[in-house]
Amino acid sequence: MGIGDDAAVLNPSPNQQILIASDTLVEGIHFPDSASPRDIATRALCVNLSDMAAMGAAPKWFTLALTLPREKANAHWLADFSSGLGEIANQHHVALVGGDTTRGPLAITITVLGETPSGQSLTRAGAAVGDRIFVTGTLADGAAALKLITSNRSLISNSDRLLSRFYKPEPQIQTGLKLRGLASACIDISDGLLADLGHICRASAVAATVSAQSVPIADDVIALCSSHTAAQSAKQCLDWALFGGDDYQLCFTVSGENLPAVEHLIATGQINATQIGVIDPPRDTTNLVRVVDSHHNAINVDKQGFDHFG
Amino acid sequence: MGIGDDAAVLNPSPNQQILIASDTLVEGIHFPDSASPRDIATRALCVNLSDMAAMGAAPKWFTLALTLPREKANAHWLADFSSGLGEIANQHHVALVGGDTTRGPLAITITVLGETPSGQSLTRAGAAVGDRIFVTGTLADGAAALKLITSNRSLISNSDRLLSRFYKPEPQIQTGLKLRGLASACIDISDGLLADLGHICRASAVAATVSAQSVPIADDVIALCSSHTAAQSAKQCLDWALFGGDDYQLCFTVSGENLPAVEHLIATGQINATQIGVIDPPRDTTNLVRVVDSHHNAINVDKQGFDHFG
Repeated sequence: MGIGDDAAVLNPSPNQQILIASDTLVEGIHFPDSASPRDIATRALCVNLSDMAAMGAAPKWFTLALTLPREKANAHWLADFSSGLGEIANQHHVALVGGDTTRGPLAITITVLGETPSGQSLTRAGAAVGDRIFVTGTLADGAAALKLITSNRSLISNSDRLLSRFYKPEPQIQTGLKLRGLASACIDISDGLLADLGHICRASAVAATVSAQSVPIADDVIALCSSHTAAQSAKQCLDWALFGGDDYQLCFTVSGENLPAVEHLIATGQINATQIGVIDPPRDTTNLVRVVDSHHNAINVDKQGFDHFG
Repeated sequence: MGIGDDAAVLNPSPNQQILIASDTLVEGIHFPDSASPRDIATRALCVNLSDMAAMGAAPKWFTLALTLPREKANAHWLADFSSGLGEIANQHHVALVGGDTTRGPLAITITVLGETPSGQSLTRAGAAVGDRIFVTGTLADGAAALKLITSNRSLISNSDRLLSRFYKPEPQIQTGLKLRGLASACIDISDGLLADLGHICRASAVAATVSAQSVPIADDVIALCSSHTAAQSAKQCLDWALFGGDDYQLCFTVSGENLPAVEHLIATGQINATQIGVIDPPRDTTNLVRVVDSHHNAINVDKQGFDHFG
């Protein structure tokens, strides 16, 4: 049954577990005041679907709690918002089953529900010493897009890809489904690679080493990083990749046993992922994720302040 | 699995449907700035559980999306909020399984999930001509509490019951469960009796007649309604009951066949409900719910502006 009653009624498939995740986006914090209603809607649903990807779940339903200030509660705003929401919902075959609309400062909370066969969801706990670490796609896109949005300047000739990565970060649903039974741990990169890989390490009681030169960064992001010196530019790019967040790629680990299967998926183009490091035995929690250069020397990385729009 | 991964994993019971509902509470709209963190938490969870009661569902899980301004993001505020949330969650055996915390203007979105055996949830569509209309508890408590809160005055000698009805509106979960298979339609009264009974009428393609003198109103509410004349006082009370909302009682309909069973539940104290009217054949949508006096003459009722805290 659809919208109209006090609650929506869902029919879970037999022998499946239900996965549920909620994320809130607040104006001025998670998107700039300049964002279009369509941009806000696509981003809100994409980042929520990303949580399903990280769990290896097939997303099925979502609820929308939309808080709107009076001046935005008009047909034009809602039509643009709905159109964006519909585009992403159709693309990923998820149904809007309910929610709430209230008056107040602009904010969107989406709760997504998905399914996995019992016991097959991917979690953060499961990475073992010697497992290889992978990431999908390219990192630093989120931070680079944020720089474009907040700088009010045309810093590169074509910013379409990066802005689209911010407002429509592609949830890695298909990759998550393919990694069921193959990845030992998985997370989506919302807080930055180091923070999110740190979550895997803590949940799995291990540590990690990441090879800086293996971290995949797109050419248009590298173009945005041009600084006084090549070394400074490279450091800026790496900072964005390690700390920037908002990438919504997956970071996952694979045991030696499952490595050939995952490499086959990559070689045949079924998933787009890059090996960036290895899981270590547990060590000092202040140094859970170590970043090394091409000579295997530790790089001293410091978290830059990423202020978003706050 | 509990909190800590990108999503929570739930095990639905076999042969059950999942019910889901989301409600947002925004500071200044749904609760006054003066509300304590504990009050905000209890109200937010109670109004969401009320949606489960209206569907005849057993609530099982919930997610919490909490948006907090910087000045409230401290241990004291969160401890008080958590304590209120925990009290209601324990009382109704629902588990907090996930959510999100963000910075921004104070708002709370709760998404509750419950279960019913397949096909047994109560809905708004199902009321038939001749069905009797019932409400649980007393009406107008929400509007009377709002008057107490916004008037800044001690209008009655003991305001504890009414303030508690506002901040801890008791979700009628047990009544909802008992009405499975007995009520032909059900809704919770959040927008006011006339609006919510109107929802049942529209969904069921019927109309309704409510007997004004049957509407149950508590003595402390009547004390609050004292106006220049007895007639004015009575009208004020009735307005609150019909339009005030925020009561979170159930309004439900019962067929002639099931009437003895429901009357037995009432007579034996298993549910606390009052018969207030009858379902009519469909008529003009501007007059879906008719209110009559003791002589069966229609009363002209006008919606007063209930401004909440806006």
